[in-house]
Amino acid sequence: MSLLVVGSVAYDSVESPKGKVDKALGGSAVFFSAAASLFTRVNAVGVVGDDYKIADLDFLKDRGVGLDGVKQVPGETFSWGGVYGKDWNDRETLFTKLGVFADFKPEIPEQYRKSDYVFLANIAPDLQMDVLAQVDSPKLVVLDTMNFWIEGQLDSLLKVIEKTDLLIINDQEIKQLTGINDIFRASEKVFTMGPKYLVVKKGEHGAVLISKTDKFFAAIYPVDEVIDPTGAGDSFAGGFMGYLAREDNLEWETMKKAVIYGTAAASFTVEDFSINRLKSATMDEVDKRVDSIRKMTNF
Amino acid sequence: MSLLVVGSVAYDSVESPKGKVDKALGGSAVFFSAAASLFTRVNAVGVVGDDYKIADLDFLKDRGVGLDGVKQVPGETFSWGGVYGKDWNDRETLFTKLGVFADFKPEIPEQYRKSDYVFLANIAPDLQMDVLAQVDSPKLVVLDTMNFWIEGQLDSLLKVIEKTDLLIINDQEIKQLTGINDIFRASEKVFTMGPKYLVVKKGEHGAVLISKTDKFFAAIYPVDEVIDPTGAGDSFAGGFMGYLAREDNLEWETMKKAVIYGTAAASFTVEDFSINRLKSATMDEVDKRVDSIRKMTNF
Repeated sequence: MSLLVVGSVAYDSVESPKGKVDKALGGSAVFFSAAASLFTRVNAVGVVGDDYKIADLDFLKDRGVGLDGVKQVPGETFSWGGVYGKDWNDRETLFTKLGVFADFKPEIPEQYRKSDYVFLANIAPDLQMDVLAQVDSPKLVVLDTMNFWIEGQLDSLLKVIEKTDLLIINDQEIKQLTGINDIFRASEKVFTMGPKYLVVKKGEHGAVLISKTDKFFAAIYPVDEVIDPTGAGDSFAGGFMGYLAREDNLEWETMKKAVIYGTAAASFTVEDFSINRLKSATMDEVDKRVDSIRKMTNF
Repeated sequence: MSLLVVGSVAYDSVESPKGKVDKALGGSAVFFSAAASLFTRVNAVGVVGDDYKIADLDFLKDRGVGLDGVKQVPGETFSWGGVYGKDWNDRETLFTKLGVFADFKPEIPEQYRKSDYVFLANIAPDLQMDVLAQVDSPKLVVLDTMNFWIEGQLDSLLKVIEKTDLLIINDQEIKQLTGINDIFRASEKVFTMGPKYLVVKKGEHGAVLISKTDKFFAAIYPVDEVIDPTGAGDSFAGGFMGYLAREDNLEWETMKKAVIYGTAAASFTVEDFSINRLKSATMDEVDKRVDSIRKMTNF
């Protein structure tokens, strides 16, 4: 079924203990689409500057990603620079240049408005709300956010969370959003805000899918070497929603598997800088990792 | 099959955000035996002072725990006092009074020397070595240790680790022991030290069982409310080894299940202070939690 992502298309400059890259492909919409397109047709909406080499997105087009919603406008493409320490949770942002992203107003092309599955990547809550005003009763709205919006635009964020079916958030952010330390108690509070489901990402400790009645714990896929975790969250979301859209059902057993597919997709992302490894991943490889995870967690 | 534990029998004074207890039953041998005795016959070796109410251990006797190796000698029973903060990893030790434990020399009663499964709880490495000198080629020797011994008695510790089949250790301690941050790379180093298996405990994030060729990720059992985590590690070990001893095989599939049984046993411990909840747990309740964990992790 049709899957829509609205998010950033960026150039990332990343340094990790394993090396560095400059102006590499990045952005939530790119990581998400790269992962989700392994499963199903994805349409992306975003903005780039006139410095952006549109041909860099050809690999997405080749995977059937609809890019009609990625507008190129005069100005500089959004770029981000960061350094990871030895502990992967320890990330320092060196710069954030919004560029053309500062004036981004998502316009959903007519042909994408009936999307059944919508991913609102981590952008300003007001823009996420704008997107929802343009789509026609999707089956599942998934929202990502971050500490920056929780701290600075909580009212707007709560409004869009109210319209969200599933919130993807990390363990620090859910504490910040709810003021509750325990993620299961915090999830009860989130359920009063609107969402029916919650995915709490715990970095190297995996993720937990939570509904009002059930919980599902997913481990990570242990890669040989983590090179760069940038984009892991968005490719997780891409694998997760790509699988759900392909299966086109929201039964609990399907959602559990979707979390594992998200985990498998993200594992490719962290194995190299940018989308270098994810780009070449095949559905067969993803399936193999899902089988491995099954062996490592089922008993 | 026969299971032996050598460890502490203690009085714990614990304060947590959920309350406090004074001079409550504690000690690694007690938590371990309480959990393991749900599965199989356990024999315990330890020491208590003349202030210890031996009748307090009647519940263990009722569960078939052999207490011939728990000696009562003149002096004060080992006692520990600690405070937990809001974050359960944040534990402050208020006092440690070794008492009669200072001169503890484990003597393994003749009838326990042929034990097939031996748990060396967290005591001085030289004492753990003394125990191994007294037992007759067990099928599985499992060792627990802590930062205190890694820092202060590394040479002795490495000697007993060399004789160990399975090391149980937490994520901080394995980094400290090996100098390697990544637990899977660290495990490779541990395998060069002697052990064939490793269980890395990650607190609220569960545990990982690692062999030279396989990995198994176990989630926690999410209890409604954590009251006191003291003894969780020892009851995990008790459930783990109790199950292995009962099944009496060391195939990978059995070991995976053993980790889950350990997790389930530990979940009762944290639900109340001391052994208050674990004491009343039944095998049927443990089995039910294992089924719940299966639903929450298998896909």
